[in-house]
Amino acid sequence: MATITQMATGTAFDVPQAGLSRYRGTTTEQKVNGTTKRIRDTKYRHVFATHSVTRTSCLSHDAESSPSFVGFRNLMILVLIVSNLRLMIVNLQKYGVLICISCHDYRRSDVITGLLLYLLVPAHLFVTYLIELAAAWQADRAYTRISKQRDEDTPAAYAAALRSFNSTWYIVAFFHSVNAVANLYIATKYVYYDIYHPGIGTLCEFHAVIVFLKCASYALTNRDLRHAYLHPKQADPLPALYKTCPYPQNINMKNLCYFWWAPTLVYQPVYPRTDTIRWGFVFKRLAELAGLSIVIWIASAQYAAPLLQNSLDKILTLNFTSIVERVMKLSTISVFCWLCGFFALFQSALNALAEVMRFGDREFYGDWWNVSSIRTYWTTWNKPVTNFMRRHIYSPLVGRGWPPALAQIFVFFFSGILHELLVGVPTHNIIGVAFAGMMFQIPMIALTDVIQKVKWIQGKVAGNMIFWISFCLVGQPLAALLYFFAWQAKYGSVSKQFQESPAMHLFLRR
Amino acid sequence: MATITQMATGTAFDVPQAGLSRYRGTTTEQKVNGTTKRIRDTKYRHVFATHSVTRTSCLSHDAESSPSFVGFRNLMILVLIVSNLRLMIVNLQKYGVLICISCHDYRRSDVITGLLLYLLVPAHLFVTYLIELAAAWQADRAYTRISKQRDEDTPAAYAAALRSFNSTWYIVAFFHSVNAVANLYIATKYVYYDIYHPGIGTLCEFHAVIVFLKCASYALTNRDLRHAYLHPKQADPLPALYKTCPYPQNINMKNLCYFWWAPTLVYQPVYPRTDTIRWGFVFKRLAELAGLSIVIWIASAQYAAPLLQNSLDKILTLNFTSIVERVMKLSTISVFCWLCGFFALFQSALNALAEVMRFGDREFYGDWWNVSSIRTYWTTWNKPVTNFMRRHIYSPLVGRGWPPALAQIFVFFFSGILHELLVGVPTHNIIGVAFAGMMFQIPMIALTDVIQKVKWIQGKVAGNMIFWISFCLVGQPLAALLYFFAWQAKYGSVSKQFQESPAMHLFLRR
Repeated sequence: MATITQMATGTAFDVPQAGLSRYRGTTTEQKVNGTTKRIRDTKYRHVFATHSVTRTSCLSHDAESSPSFVGFRNLMILVLIVSNLRLMIVNLQKYGVLICISCHDYRRSDVITGLLLYLLVPAHLFVTYLIELAAAWQADRAYTRISKQRDEDTPAAYAAALRSFNSTWYIVAFFHSVNAVANLYIATKYVYYDIYHPGIGTLCEFHAVIVFLKCASYALTNRDLRHAYLHPKQADPLPALYKTCPYPQNINMKNLCYFWWAPTLVYQPVYPRTDTIRWGFVFKRLAELAGLSIVIWIASAQYAAPLLQNSLDKILTLNFTSIVERVMKLSTISVFCWLCGFFALFQSALNALAEVMRFGDREFYGDWWNVSSIRTYWTTWNKPVTNFMRRHIYSPLVGRGWPPALAQIFVFFFSGILHELLVGVPTHNIIGVAFAGMMFQIPMIALTDVIQKVKWIQGKVAGNMIFWISFCLVGQPLAALLYFFAWQAKYGSVSKQFQESPAMHLFLRR
Repeated sequence: MATITQMATGTAFDVPQAGLSRYRGTTTEQKVNGTTKRIRDTKYRHVFATHSVTRTSCLSHDAESSPSFVGFRNLMILVLIVSNLRLMIVNLQKYGVLICISCHDYRRSDVITGLLLYLLVPAHLFVTYLIELAAAWQADRAYTRISKQRDEDTPAAYAAALRSFNSTWYIVAFFHSVNAVANLYIATKYVYYDIYHPGIGTLCEFHAVIVFLKCASYALTNRDLRHAYLHPKQADPLPALYKTCPYPQNINMKNLCYFWWAPTLVYQPVYPRTDTIRWGFVFKRLAELAGLSIVIWIASAQYAAPLLQNSLDKILTLNFTSIVERVMKLSTISVFCWLCGFFALFQSALNALAEVMRFGDREFYGDWWNVSSIRTYWTTWNKPVTNFMRRHIYSPLVGRGWPPALAQIFVFFFSGILHELLVGVPTHNIIGVAFAGMMFQIPMIALTDVIQKVKWIQGKVAGNMIFWISFCLVGQPLAALLYFFAWQAKYGSVSKQFQESPAMHLFLRR
């Protein structure tokens, strides 16, 4: 009944006021169903001028204002959901349920090697600490000596001091380098030769790279802090934040352990901290992490795995149309997993960790999804790594006189090597696709830098489209397909057929 | 070289200004590649405080402002394009090219009957004209008689005048009804029994329904104009627009022919007109119409036809999961064709026709894609029909004292009959799905009227989603599938299997 009343009071079918006003006769009030309704008593119902003015269609170019298209956004969301639900039905009809917990065959030796690396890798951070402890002890001795000569404020004294500082630093740097490289080398060697399962391998390699970067940042930051401690007059003052923990007081176990677990790759003696740990916040983030991990696992096992599997013979026969079709199909799943993975790692996991560590600066990423230049993407999607690269590679290189463009290229080169380590080593195929992908970013940056400024093609939208296409719709699924194929060619079902296939000519096999 | 320079001046990798300002040492100017660059000579590169303030992640609930998600809109567009391009590749690999001009088998008799109906149907509009010509002649005589009695301005005289007017009108209305119903009956009979091809049948039936509505509007409007002519004191004045062509001068061949071709179903003696015909505009609209027609044809022949064909056995065996899957797949093509068809008819065709006719009011539709209530959808997507329904059915019924809700239900009932005529008759299966679909709009209107006002579920978005789901993603493809199946069951490949199938129990066969 309420509904009928509501329909009755709706204006949808009412005569337009402008058109009607002239012909409105007397209006009588009438009691219908207990509510008072106004029934118009107009004589001429059939003559009002429906077409009374000249108007344009709202989609015409000569329309005064463009209508909103927000409804089409909703339609797009629905069509995406419906299309992919349909593909899920087809997938289930074709393969049944592929998700299976007991089916995973972790080799016993993989798990043992993995655990060993998990314990061994952080040990290198403690070695870094010991080296710094020795350097701090040496600096303390130098400080006493220098303070006696402090009155001599001449250029010659400056040069002598720098020489003396550097001769010590080269020794310190040597030990640091040996330690950091050893960490990376040992982990890579074990993952490449002894860990068969790519998942366990990836975790170990990730851990090693993170600790490698933390060691480097700890060593380099303390080098500058030490110099400032010994020669306070020769440079600008240190950040005000660091005053509560001056060098060499910061070289202590507690400070190191905080840096070990802090969600950053950049060492600072002092970080902005929050006052309390909100445990509710932590549990919500951990629940997100768990939920998203399950979603990614289902998507990979149920949708990506059969897709990758049945694209193998397309690569073997170099059927390019079918390869393109497979990459296109894979791209949706890969974008989906990538977005879930990004959120799980950078929003859920790092925020949970930061909350537990009372780490104040939660800017782990920017709004990279809106970027119009691929340059901006690489500086916003992964702030921990960007911060490391900026502080310890780009900025010192520019300081030494390198042209900024060259310093940027060097950063991408270094990042390319890390990417290849992280992807090529656990899959036991250092085929260079990840490295090439990173190097390919340099011309892409140059391209989108130009395109985003072109107004007549809506440069910002075009740049954003190029980013999504190159990165998520082509780059990632293609790379995934190539590494999967290389892995299968080495260990899997196609390794024999591969020897006689035309694809053999395209792949160099080790 | 320009690119390198541009990369060099980019700020992406530069140290953030706030963080750097404290440590900036002397700045030297250096000539590199002919351009002057500022190289910073800061001592402490590795110590600046990357993490200097407490910040939240931009996707966190406690973030100060929500970031823009415009990039995800672009991603959605791309994923939609890529997914559907992929389906096109799969379709081509599976079926090859299905588009074929010479393959269509129009029966000769279909074309002849169609042409006959094309000539016969408008004749009824001219019969309507002849009836009105007679009525106008009679009104002219009555006018002379009444003008003698004009002084008697009493209620009794009014009642007598109304009686006299109505007695004539009942005769006129009888002839109009016979003529209009005969038009619809003859066309429907020929289309249902003699035109096998559903395409030709649909065109003929559409033509007949349009002329039927035009006849009704012409008769009803002239009835009110005649009354106003005879009894000017008894009602409000007519629209100012009509003054240039007062009754009975408007009953002439030229005026009728203009209404015959004008892009409206509502008769007015005078319409707002444009000054000139922009032939460039006309050709652009016609080019759009041609292009979109080809696109719709390809989409139907290449994508919808095989999909409908291979869903037949799913309906025969009542495999509901597969029927759902087919409807989901069909929905994308059906939405696409619907949007193209809408644009082709309501934007391109009607605007072209309006331009040639110098018809001023081009509001053939509103921004129905943004509707949050299904009520608004039905009043905005097809303004010509809405205008007819409002002026000649809804508004007179409400004027006679019907509750507005009941009048609306009656409009949907009438519209449901027309929809069934337009779909059921050309497919030779009056199975009532189109009629039921229209009647189903009434509870849907009641539902979305409520939902759009609920704030905590973003009612407007929810209402819009319900509109798209019910109308474009379920309603249309399901109806298309059912009519296709019914047609195939009567004439096509499955007519024999159908007798023994479980689906037989669900379909009543005539």
